[in-house]
Amino acid sequence: MAGARLAARLARHSTSLLPSPHAAAAAARRRLCSPSSSQRGQYSKMGDLCGSNGQGAVTRVLFCGPYWPASTNYTREYLQNYPFIQVDEVGLEQVPDVIQNYHICVVKNRRIDSDIIAKASQMKIIMQYGVGLEGVDVNAATEHKIKVARIPGSSTGNAVSCAEMAIYLTLGVLRKQKEMDTAVNRKDLGVPVGDTLFGKTILILGFGAIGVEVAKRLRPFGVKVLATKRNWSSDTLPCDVDEMVDKKGGPEDMYEFAGEADIVITCMALNNETGSYLINIARGRLLDYNAVFDHLKSGHLAGLGIDVAWMEPFDPEDPILKFPNVIITPHVAGVTEYSYRTMAKSVGDTALQLHSGEPFTAIEFVN
Amino acid sequence: MAGARLAARLARHSTSLLPSPHAAAAAARRRLCSPSSSQRGQYSKMGDLCGSNGQGAVTRVLFCGPYWPASTNYTREYLQNYPFIQVDEVGLEQVPDVIQNYHICVVKNRRIDSDIIAKASQMKIIMQYGVGLEGVDVNAATEHKIKVARIPGSSTGNAVSCAEMAIYLTLGVLRKQKEMDTAVNRKDLGVPVGDTLFGKTILILGFGAIGVEVAKRLRPFGVKVLATKRNWSSDTLPCDVDEMVDKKGGPEDMYEFAGEADIVITCMALNNETGSYLINIARGRLLDYNAVFDHLKSGHLAGLGIDVAWMEPFDPEDPILKFPNVIITPHVAGVTEYSYRTMAKSVGDTALQLHSGEPFTAIEFVN
Repeated sequence: MAGARLAARLARHSTSLLPSPHAAAAAARRRLCSPSSSQRGQYSKMGDLCGSNGQGAVTRVLFCGPYWPASTNYTREYLQNYPFIQVDEVGLEQVPDVIQNYHICVVKNRRIDSDIIAKASQMKIIMQYGVGLEGVDVNAATEHKIKVARIPGSSTGNAVSCAEMAIYLTLGVLRKQKEMDTAVNRKDLGVPVGDTLFGKTILILGFGAIGVEVAKRLRPFGVKVLATKRNWSSDTLPCDVDEMVDKKGGPEDMYEFAGEADIVITCMALNNETGSYLINIARGRLLDYNAVFDHLKSGHLAGLGIDVAWMEPFDPEDPILKFPNVIITPHVAGVTEYSYRTMAKSVGDTALQLHSGEPFTAIEFVN
Repeated sequence: MAGARLAARLARHSTSLLPSPHAAAAAARRRLCSPSSSQRGQYSKMGDLCGSNGQGAVTRVLFCGPYWPASTNYTREYLQNYPFIQVDEVGLEQVPDVIQNYHICVVKNRRIDSDIIAKASQMKIIMQYGVGLEGVDVNAATEHKIKVARIPGSSTGNAVSCAEMAIYLTLGVLRKQKEMDTAVNRKDLGVPVGDTLFGKTILILGFGAIGVEVAKRLRPFGVKVLATKRNWSSDTLPCDVDEMVDKKGGPEDMYEFAGEADIVITCMALNNETGSYLINIARGRLLDYNAVFDHLKSGHLAGLGIDVAWMEPFDPEDPILKFPNVIITPHVAGVTEYSYRTMAKSVGDTALQLHSGEPFTAIEFVN
């Protein structure tokens, strides 16, 4: 079913994920090296984007591999009718050796430090296939007149996908996924006794695009939702935020709120956290490994569900995975057909827009 | 955290799960063998409930074991301050040998046929710890003046718990739980590409207590919900049913709706079903094993998530479990702290009410 049916569904729900090759190519030819005045103004800091890859030239996109392979594959598929865009993937170690040949770099989990940036002589945009740019030395990029960008999570399926994963992991720990597996293998029935979301208090740390989607979905589960956010006056918040959140606080309320919560879902930067159940779909290093381990051991943490780990890939033999109430998924919170196709469109459109000198519509610059 | 904190939470959300021993015992003493006239009328078919277990006697409750052990344990805990209620559990094989000693039988997965019923000379109520009474010969019970009852799913946590499990399993198959496990063990990252609920069409077969709770929770996931039900004019439906369901149909629409759906969730009796993803939290035999197997093999079924199996406990080596897109849980959809404590209260209150000759408030008679 996947392909056609999914595309049809998505077309109903969002903008089309497939470019119209003829129209887009014609437009690209038309616009090549004739950026509009508004675009010139908007992107003046970037230098002349057409200088290094004008008409007839190839725009080269580098994916730092090998993980999250669908990011490369879906972008390649999206651009298959555009011979003037080249999509390559190289291993993490090879990136410094080839980066000077590329105009766009999709970093994934590759650290892009100032040494690598210094070598990226043709680079125009360093971007993430998603939102996390913590591995990129943005200052160095700025010095070298390279733009750094993320794909906003709310405009692709990323926030939605991550929110669904957060709920999946929450239910998984509440239901004791591992003990259920054991019960199946032992031919037990009706054990373990799980726990419901219903009646729980859930603390969402970080009420950005993902946090909003999590809260929205939690509402009908009959839970109390607490959330912390640095700035609640942000204009990116939905208008019905008060219907989603029972209690709003700032970062300073984190520990007090955590004391009240049964489940803590991290959707932001965090150094140390406690709570009954802990779900992390953000970044592995946000949690203090030793603290989490100790709290699991003492029983203070009733369960841990993580899509992200301290080192990735995470050692499957790591002692923390031996706790029966710990479940882990392989950093796939945002990895769904929906979000990956949409993000492929973002990368592809960015490449097309860079190539043709059009304004960028799919990405958000941070510098 | 479980105990006290959960109880406090539940107290906020529903009625107390703990009887007030002194008040209830005093009431029981007061009412013992003096049923009100209304109760006499209401339960006249049952015979004199106090005849066989009057003042000073013990009311004996039989749980058919050994599966779903928390049902017995929680009921026992609930009744620990009532020495005049005795709660026993015996193995499935021993039931016919001891059933004549009991007033209430909680059947779980024991078949209660006419032979066993003929032996149950003191039996007043045969009930389920939940809703499923398919194993009880209701006609034979009626002939022997034994009442048969279920605990309505909407008044305990059962429907809510089952609905949460349905959503958990749905997300599990969409995210490819097994492939995620494999990826973790292989130290892969960012695979598999899962699927979102967002954008999917979901068919709920059977729109009873569980179906309603499933639909309610699915709404903010951005899905289209189809549902079939024998009688949509039922007064048990919530008033906002039209906000939960995009398309309503009768059993005759099942196949047409299934053709439109990405995910089918069974919450009712069913003989054979097809769909892209199939979730079964109802009863294992509702699905045609061979049909499901063949459709998994052909790829017509994109995934199967089952909490119930054809034989239970299910052989963990069964070939159907070898498909990478099949996940199974050990019949625990309704097995949560919340629902099990509430159902223990139902059983306990029923025992107390039987003992004291009070009207029954926690169960729903089917005969």
